[in-house]
Amino acid sequence: MAKSTVFFKNKPRICSTFTIAGPKEGNSLFGKYIHEILKDDRFDEDTFEKAECKMLSYCIEQTIKSANKKQTDINALISGDLLNQIISASFAARNFDFPYIGVYNACSTFSEALSLSAVLVDGGYMKNVVAATGSHFATAERQYRYPLELGSTRPPQSQWTVTGAGGALITDKGSYPKIISATFGKVVDFGITDANNMGAAMAPACCDTLLTLLKETDTSPKDYDLILTGDLGALGSRLMKKLAKERGVNIDNHCDCGEMIYNLKEEEYQGGSGAGCSAVVFSSYIYKKLMKKEIKRMILLATGALLSSLSSQQGESIPGISHAVVVEA
Amino acid sequence: MAKSTVFFKNKPRICSTFTIAGPKEGNSLFGKYIHEILKDDRFDEDTFEKAECKMLSYCIEQTIKSANKKQTDINALISGDLLNQIISASFAARNFDFPYIGVYNACSTFSEALSLSAVLVDGGYMKNVVAATGSHFATAERQYRYPLELGSTRPPQSQWTVTGAGGALITDKGSYPKIISATFGKVVDFGITDANNMGAAMAPACCDTLLTLLKETDTSPKDYDLILTGDLGALGSRLMKKLAKERGVNIDNHCDCGEMIYNLKEEEYQGGSGAGCSAVVFSSYIYKKLMKKEIKRMILLATGALLSSLSSQQGESIPGISHAVVVEA
Repeated sequence: MAKSTVFFKNKPRICSTFTIAGPKEGNSLFGKYIHEILKDDRFDEDTFEKAECKMLSYCIEQTIKSANKKQTDINALISGDLLNQIISASFAARNFDFPYIGVYNACSTFSEALSLSAVLVDGGYMKNVVAATGSHFATAERQYRYPLELGSTRPPQSQWTVTGAGGALITDKGSYPKIISATFGKVVDFGITDANNMGAAMAPACCDTLLTLLKETDTSPKDYDLILTGDLGALGSRLMKKLAKERGVNIDNHCDCGEMIYNLKEEEYQGGSGAGCSAVVFSSYIYKKLMKKEIKRMILLATGALLSSLSSQQGESIPGISHAVVVEA
Repeated sequence: MAKSTVFFKNKPRICSTFTIAGPKEGNSLFGKYIHEILKDDRFDEDTFEKAECKMLSYCIEQTIKSANKKQTDINALISGDLLNQIISASFAARNFDFPYIGVYNACSTFSEALSLSAVLVDGGYMKNVVAATGSHFATAERQYRYPLELGSTRPPQSQWTVTGAGGALITDKGSYPKIISATFGKVVDFGITDANNMGAAMAPACCDTLLTLLKETDTSPKDYDLILTGDLGALGSRLMKKLAKERGVNIDNHCDCGEMIYNLKEEEYQGGSGAGCSAVVFSSYIYKKLMKKEIKRMILLATGALLSSLSSQQGESIPGISHAVVVEA
């Protein structure tokens, strides 16, 4: 038995996706692939936290609707976000009359949720499970760094938390992209302490999960049309490729959701991040490519940095984690 | 197909448990059942947060050791806690060379983790999964209420966060207590806004999950030797029984982990709470009773209140959630 990889005999399907994002994400080159763009990142709410929750809730609702399913068809929602006590997910779940399984692995929560959804559907335990995650720039800045009102400058190694949410409905049959396997990641800590340099904190974990996946599935990077990491950003992506190369694995077919989502010419520096980043990129552009069979087989490796404001204040380093799913058209 | 309940054909086993708790928990009547009692709730660390993480880490290690298994036998850790970004679980996972799946549903995280572990083992995806959760009075007070140094008084409807951690190793065979089914709970909100009255916030969700479980498993309370709720406390337990009675279900064989863990004569008021509460009570006293077959069939319904300091500040109510597992000796 592979230690970290679980294989899905019944190949659970991703039968629908939905994405929603803020105006900044909408204005990037990537914007045209996102299902719905907000004109105002407050989403008619009086706080950014409520806007984040509303985005996620709306995204869950539309994911179900896009699949032509009813809310009564859904067995469970697996969701998480970056806010303390994952309140966006928990309060979004309040709007639905089906079970809620709250998960958290920072920005790798989307592939964690996809993996668990696939397990529940593949094993015949459930028929329809929604996996959804989101994040919001303004809430993340306030919680992890400084209030926006302070006007702090950001260092060049930093990333920009994506204002957006993405959802996917995992079901047991139909002609849709299939989840073939999931590789659950270990916590890997290379001792990074700069909370502005998430890419460096996450790259080692991402590399570890990728190498584990390749070994346990007996494949090489060439067997995939795309190796898509979550939000390593420009610097983190280069670090990850370098780490892999040092271990004898060359990855040429790699893209990073964080690098793709913005135009990379302004204040985002290394690119996007956040639990919404990989969720939005995968569930929009990438999912469409899978549906058209322009991508036939790919790995999604969402990546997370495990820290809190408090852990950094107490001098802790920032360990990373990455969970991977293999998806086939 | 039952909507919320998943049934386990292969009946995953709980082959070992371990619990650790603070001096206050050790001094209660319940203390003698806990595997290890700390003399100092700092656990030789310089912060309470680090002590909480160390308890959880130690508990995971000892759970594996008690089963006479090696760390290399373990496929995954499913864990969570009450701290922002579940840092206790994430930093504890750093000490182990196996995958980590972070989960969060407040104080219902223990039964959530048990349920997902049972799914992974029952489906043949994994052989050995550790489910573990913990909490710490001092860290919870500081994060959710006030720093201890402030000496705030606590209102009579409040509960006392358990300083402790509990772990269970779920495996695929052997003569051990078996997990028969898991019922995933919905988020239920009765509009409670008093962050000191968690029992009232959680009771409706607990009642909802119990009634769903009874319906979907076609059983009645009499079919169980024990219906064990997580941390409703004295008041919450009475509310839950009242709500169930109003819906035509009488529960006489009910105990609450929060009511059991302290002596209920001092400042704990309604009893214990926290992600460590049900984990410690179930994994010590109750597990021993199951092993001796003094309990033959029971329901564990850990209960969680979904809030953050911020959600309360922004005027949100406190929804509850409860996940249930049925365990047979």
